[in-house]
Amino acid sequence: MPKPIRIFDTTLRDGTQGEHISFSAEDKFRIAKRLDEFGIHYIEGGWPGSNPKDMAFFEKAKKHTFRHAKVVAFGSTCRAGNSPEEDTNLRALIQVETPAVSVFGKTWLLHVEEALNITPEENLKIISGSVNHLKAHNKEVIYDAEHFFDGYRHDPDYAIRTLLAAECSGADVLVLCDTNGGTLPHEISGIVHEVKKHVSAPIGIHAHNDCELAVANTLAAVQAGANHVQGTVNGYGERCGNANLCSVIPNLQLKMGHHCVSGQNLPQLSTLMKFVGELANLVPDSKQPYVGKSAFAHKGGVHVSAVMKNAATYEHIAPEKVGNRRRVLISDLSGKSNLSYKSEELGFHFDKQSEESTAIVQKLKTLENEGFRYEAAEASFELLVKHMTGQAPDYFDLEGFRVIVEQNAKGESRSEATIKVRVNGQVELSAAEGNGPVHALDAALRRALCEFYPEISAMSLRDYKVRVLNEKKGTGAKVRVLIDSAAGDNGWGTVGVSENIIDASWQALSEGVTYFLMNNSSKPKKIKPINDGKILTS
Amino acid sequence: MPKPIRIFDTTLRDGTQGEHISFSAEDKFRIAKRLDEFGIHYIEGGWPGSNPKDMAFFEKAKKHTFRHAKVVAFGSTCRAGNSPEEDTNLRALIQVETPAVSVFGKTWLLHVEEALNITPEENLKIISGSVNHLKAHNKEVIYDAEHFFDGYRHDPDYAIRTLLAAECSGADVLVLCDTNGGTLPHEISGIVHEVKKHVSAPIGIHAHNDCELAVANTLAAVQAGANHVQGTVNGYGERCGNANLCSVIPNLQLKMGHHCVSGQNLPQLSTLMKFVGELANLVPDSKQPYVGKSAFAHKGGVHVSAVMKNAATYEHIAPEKVGNRRRVLISDLSGKSNLSYKSEELGFHFDKQSEESTAIVQKLKTLENEGFRYEAAEASFELLVKHMTGQAPDYFDLEGFRVIVEQNAKGESRSEATIKVRVNGQVELSAAEGNGPVHALDAALRRALCEFYPEISAMSLRDYKVRVLNEKKGTGAKVRVLIDSAAGDNGWGTVGVSENIIDASWQALSEGVTYFLMNNSSKPKKIKPINDGKILTS
Repeated sequence: MPKPIRIFDTTLRDGTQGEHISFSAEDKFRIAKRLDEFGIHYIEGGWPGSNPKDMAFFEKAKKHTFRHAKVVAFGSTCRAGNSPEEDTNLRALIQVETPAVSVFGKTWLLHVEEALNITPEENLKIISGSVNHLKAHNKEVIYDAEHFFDGYRHDPDYAIRTLLAAECSGADVLVLCDTNGGTLPHEISGIVHEVKKHVSAPIGIHAHNDCELAVANTLAAVQAGANHVQGTVNGYGERCGNANLCSVIPNLQLKMGHHCVSGQNLPQLSTLMKFVGELANLVPDSKQPYVGKSAFAHKGGVHVSAVMKNAATYEHIAPEKVGNRRRVLISDLSGKSNLSYKSEELGFHFDKQSEESTAIVQKLKTLENEGFRYEAAEASFELLVKHMTGQAPDYFDLEGFRVIVEQNAKGESRSEATIKVRVNGQVELSAAEGNGPVHALDAALRRALCEFYPEISAMSLRDYKVRVLNEKKGTGAKVRVLIDSAAGDNGWGTVGVSENIIDASWQALSEGVTYFLMNNSSKPKKIKPINDGKILTS
Repeated sequence: MPKPIRIFDTTLRDGTQGEHISFSAEDKFRIAKRLDEFGIHYIEGGWPGSNPKDMAFFEKAKKHTFRHAKVVAFGSTCRAGNSPEEDTNLRALIQVETPAVSVFGKTWLLHVEEALNITPEENLKIISGSVNHLKAHNKEVIYDAEHFFDGYRHDPDYAIRTLLAAECSGADVLVLCDTNGGTLPHEISGIVHEVKKHVSAPIGIHAHNDCELAVANTLAAVQAGANHVQGTVNGYGERCGNANLCSVIPNLQLKMGHHCVSGQNLPQLSTLMKFVGELANLVPDSKQPYVGKSAFAHKGGVHVSAVMKNAATYEHIAPEKVGNRRRVLISDLSGKSNLSYKSEELGFHFDKQSEESTAIVQKLKTLENEGFRYEAAEASFELLVKHMTGQAPDYFDLEGFRVIVEQNAKGESRSEATIKVRVNGQVELSAAEGNGPVHALDAALRRALCEFYPEISAMSLRDYKVRVLNEKKGTGAKVRVLIDSAAGDNGWGTVGVSENIIDASWQALSEGVTYFLMNNSSKPKKIKPINDGKILTS
């Protein structure tokens, strides 16, 4: 039976427990606004009192009007021995003035007896006292039953009694947490069914991914009667992460027919994933279901030709539904179908059977063996094809460059680059400083070219990524540099590979500039002679 | 009911369809030997005839004696219109002389009619003809029913008829493939139950992760009666990947009591994951369940103090069972419990309440805000703590360095570094070339120091990683450099952060050397004065 599901996002609280996750208060606020626009029902912002960053977030959030979402403060039930009125934790929860709070209490006797060192009865009093106190302050109370499934396996009666303590004190939702992430879907399903026999408050699920089952466990709980779902964007969270809302939401909504967010908003999902990933400063997982860059990418030749006839043959949903798109990859596994699909996107028309096409596939294989990847460097791929078909533009030749980085005894450093280029027979020498060697080289190149191509001032470097290949070889290893350049809203990627990071950067930098000039310069293009070497560095 | 499960690894075939995956024939052979040692039953090596790499692999494999595993060649059933005897695909499958072959046939009428353009009856003949032919050549035949679940939803009778065509022709296993990865666990479960009513051959499952449910779907199929499981190491594979055997195997064996590999071998799982990741040249996913670096990492202060009392409080299994280990993270979320656990590992004893401990936590927060991460740079963390407690060793002072990278018009480049260090009042100037700027700087530093500390020749750089922070700022962005140094089997990590990649590298390089000298030099240590600046770069 389709039903409305309340989505509770804990990216800003449980998500930040992930190993490489750290958000500033401003990051948190920006993410909260995005989650609200997307249609999330609850946004857990942090644990007031635990650190100044979370307090700053709640201050900002208080002054903002959220359209859909309720901001939630998280904290523990009161400390053993404290009265709820005096408890600093509960006081902090009330002081941040959020409409809703989530409090966690203990279910598992192992924790009650070993970690808290109190009796089972005292624990029940802590739960009911804390919930009662928060309800008396007019809070919507989300009760998180920590380690619910482990506790239930150990002592089902006591686990149910902890839920009843929260329910009788007025808790609005009872969230069953698989805190250690060790429970399997059929166990989740069985236990939620049992719980529903004893309590009447709405049931929530909070799953962790330690068995790679967080999404499945969440769906199993919903099928067994839960209608409140906790998770994080991209599955960020402690250890192996929390249930990934970017998978949970489309599964519930597109596959199971439940209602989570407005259908109009669902195509924002891919952007949301990238936005949060960028603020977390983590490279997005290209394999991520639904929203990842590879989720609708086709590499095998058989798949590509079938998808070109009918997309449903190898796609479980239309990528647009979650704001993603189909991609066809160029790689050494790719047959000529892939190459011709890709080339047509770029405006080339190949006869699949031609010698030209065979030569390009061969060349791609060689370059990929050397470490080049064209999946994110479509401008380099286009230049390569143009080069091999006698259409490579010729804007400048490098006569040489020198990059110097110095550091003195005070730790002060200075980077300088000099470059000599030849344009239409005229030689230009220029120098520039930068806050690093590549920055200096980029500045020197632009300076050398701007006299000939003043339009170059419209383009800029947007992103710079370095990947070390064969990492085991230490500083002598090859590096691959990917550069994203942009002019206004248009962006393009280029790639360079070398054992020397400056050389690799130069390849990508100079191709980025050439690609821009090819599309924007009013000067007539000269064409370079065909050869099968590298494009600009040979 | 616990039962023996046959594990079928397709890392070398379906895994290589993943976006960034590419193995040489030698890589494939090394992986196959590891999988065999681990106790995998079937190793699918590739698609003979599709490319020379796969042919080279089968040549190597033929000459090797595998202890447990059968090597499997993969291919399609014969082409419409071909007789099995004449079909090049089937011929290639037979010629590679593997004991087992897997052949895929069509289940879904959409593919039969739209992609193959043949009648449903012709498709059944292709399946039975191909299986018959392979059985006549004494092959163990694993029949992959492509798009089985999509086909079943569309026309259950026809889907069963395709299985019966394979079964009646002698197929040894019928593998139900969720090729597009769009099926949910309860659907898998229901359909496998139905299939079991019609066929008596063993059932296999081949799941893809497009809904983040590949592991759950695999477990659901086993619960419904499947006893042959296909997947890949680390879940590599087309689009969102295949079922991840690193999660499937421990779930089946440790949680559900089935038998997959010898219990003695299971602790090799974490090494297997790293080994394959290294050959794939992909950064391992630290969040990966069971085997990831973060899978048993504890960051929140509450969790850390509980785990220190009893590990079961926040760990679903003992990490040793899968060859992993517990880690306690140092981060801005970490309370003093984490710091004291970590410090004791390093041999420091802190009073949790001391001013010293507060100052270090403060300092850590500041450095983490600047982009430093100590999770993989334990040597830098140790130096930081020593520094702040007046125990920092003083082996050399930097007077200055200069790094020069030049490239000429022919594209030839040269990297050179000069460095001036002071040791015990004596100044040493040295120069070195390298195949990149960091390599040259490393060489110059070692040369300058080797006169004073000849033991330095025993250490080397093992790994060099560059991460660009705030990527949107182009070449002016900050970079974080992580360096892994080693002497024999001992390795240690150091970190540097700067807008200038050479400066960041210098920080990590020089701390790596200092850490080595601190533990290996026979020279008496001088102690630096306490200050709260950076350790070696200030």
